[in-house]
Amino acid sequence: MTKQELINQIKLKKSFLCIGLDVDLEKIPKYLLEFEDPIFEFNKQIIDATHHLTVAYKPNTAFYEAYGLKGWKSLEKTINYLNENYPEVFTIADAKRGDIGNTSTMYAKAFFEDLNFDSVTVAPYMGSDSVEPFLTFKDKFTIMLALTSNKGGLDFQGLTVNGKKLYQEVLSTSLTWKNSNNLMYVVGATKAEYFEDIRKYVPNHFLLVPGVGAQGGNLKDVCKYGLTDEIGLLVNSSRGIIYAGNDSDFAIKAQEKAFELQQEMKGIMLK
Amino acid sequence: MTKQELINQIKLKKSFLCIGLDVDLEKIPKYLLEFEDPIFEFNKQIIDATHHLTVAYKPNTAFYEAYGLKGWKSLEKTINYLNENYPEVFTIADAKRGDIGNTSTMYAKAFFEDLNFDSVTVAPYMGSDSVEPFLTFKDKFTIMLALTSNKGGLDFQGLTVNGKKLYQEVLSTSLTWKNSNNLMYVVGATKAEYFEDIRKYVPNHFLLVPGVGAQGGNLKDVCKYGLTDEIGLLVNSSRGIIYAGNDSDFAIKAQEKAFELQQEMKGIMLK
Repeated sequence: MTKQELINQIKLKKSFLCIGLDVDLEKIPKYLLEFEDPIFEFNKQIIDATHHLTVAYKPNTAFYEAYGLKGWKSLEKTINYLNENYPEVFTIADAKRGDIGNTSTMYAKAFFEDLNFDSVTVAPYMGSDSVEPFLTFKDKFTIMLALTSNKGGLDFQGLTVNGKKLYQEVLSTSLTWKNSNNLMYVVGATKAEYFEDIRKYVPNHFLLVPGVGAQGGNLKDVCKYGLTDEIGLLVNSSRGIIYAGNDSDFAIKAQEKAFELQQEMKGIMLK
Repeated sequence: MTKQELINQIKLKKSFLCIGLDVDLEKIPKYLLEFEDPIFEFNKQIIDATHHLTVAYKPNTAFYEAYGLKGWKSLEKTINYLNENYPEVFTIADAKRGDIGNTSTMYAKAFFEDLNFDSVTVAPYMGSDSVEPFLTFKDKFTIMLALTSNKGGLDFQGLTVNGKKLYQEVLSTSLTWKNSNNLMYVVGATKAEYFEDIRKYVPNHFLLVPGVGAQGGNLKDVCKYGLTDEIGLLVNSSRGIIYAGNDSDFAIKAQEKAFELQQEMKGIMLK
């Protein structure tokens, strides 16, 4: 998918919502456990009920790997279902990978070619050659961790280097890498003020924003500082949407929550 | 496996070798492609031929994920084969994972419980709560990236923070985390002098050292600065061993290369 196609979809749906498909067998409705592939069945129903309200889906690979071979199969079925039925939706493998050059190439092929995701999240610690192999893929996006909203996020990201914070250094350095136009960044939503500062470094790149809702971030504040002329934000919600209900009507409950967020986004976009 | 059991094995075998099982179908002997699971067959033969010379095996998960479901199955068969036949050998899932707390727990369960690896590599960028969930597992080890030997390794790791290098800060901060005695560290071998400095921060922790051989590191120099009374090093070689031969005698060729390295290590240990 091209960046323009993503923007077009956002404008059409009046939504920059991303739904995190972080499926935990202990949290899904019990009746689904009788299906041959409960995780896929759960995802399928969530997707069918929300695809018109969201522009992206983001399965976190940890939740699939935790179930071994079966989980990997559920992930494969989920991405195939998305690509076959809703090819207009942007897909994110939230894998946080990163390794030396030739090994990162293996990961890039796994997620971009075999699984055919539109994007994958990566970690920056190993530097240029751990990320650049991902950037060589045309019309694919590499979403690099910049500033995360978890408890330990600032342990290293908030340290001062070269007169700025490490996450700022990560942002500015990454812009010098080959094909850096294929980058997006993960920026957690717990402190909206950070977005003003981050936009000084990456005024036009898309930011993937987890942490609105469950992790305490506020959509309006994030948008105040983070929105660009091309929107430039994908705001993720996982548990708040997919576990809104816990019965046979869970997909409807998820749809209601997604609709609430989409309506809030629409209001912001039309201002 | 306990740290003491690992040390005992090192002393018994006079070896602190780790063999990287980074299997690429394009590089293995052609005749193996006729087997039902060529990757597992390759690993099995390498393992059977080298287990007495090495104390650890390290499959890099990227090489398995690149083959999708089939690859994941080969990984599962490989770790099961190791645990059933050579339980004395230390096993490392080179996965470089790391995510927010509850998600890291999923990864930890996947590698420590389901696959039953003795250890897993992790990336530090997301801080304390991305690593601590791994550290709670008894007799399991978490091998955190500290200083890597790839081209971009110093892009961020070499930056100065709080008057020291980022990798030094990562080392010293990680020692304050809960169960930090379950940590080991990845330290690349390209510059042996770094080991002297690293030992000031982590005098007793094991270091996993890739980059001897293919990536240009020198075993003697690494040992000069990195060895402790309990050895404290696992020196990895992947391509140099597993691709030493390319015919039906590939396992024997691998054994010869492993033997060369083990002899060199024995010489260093007996000095």
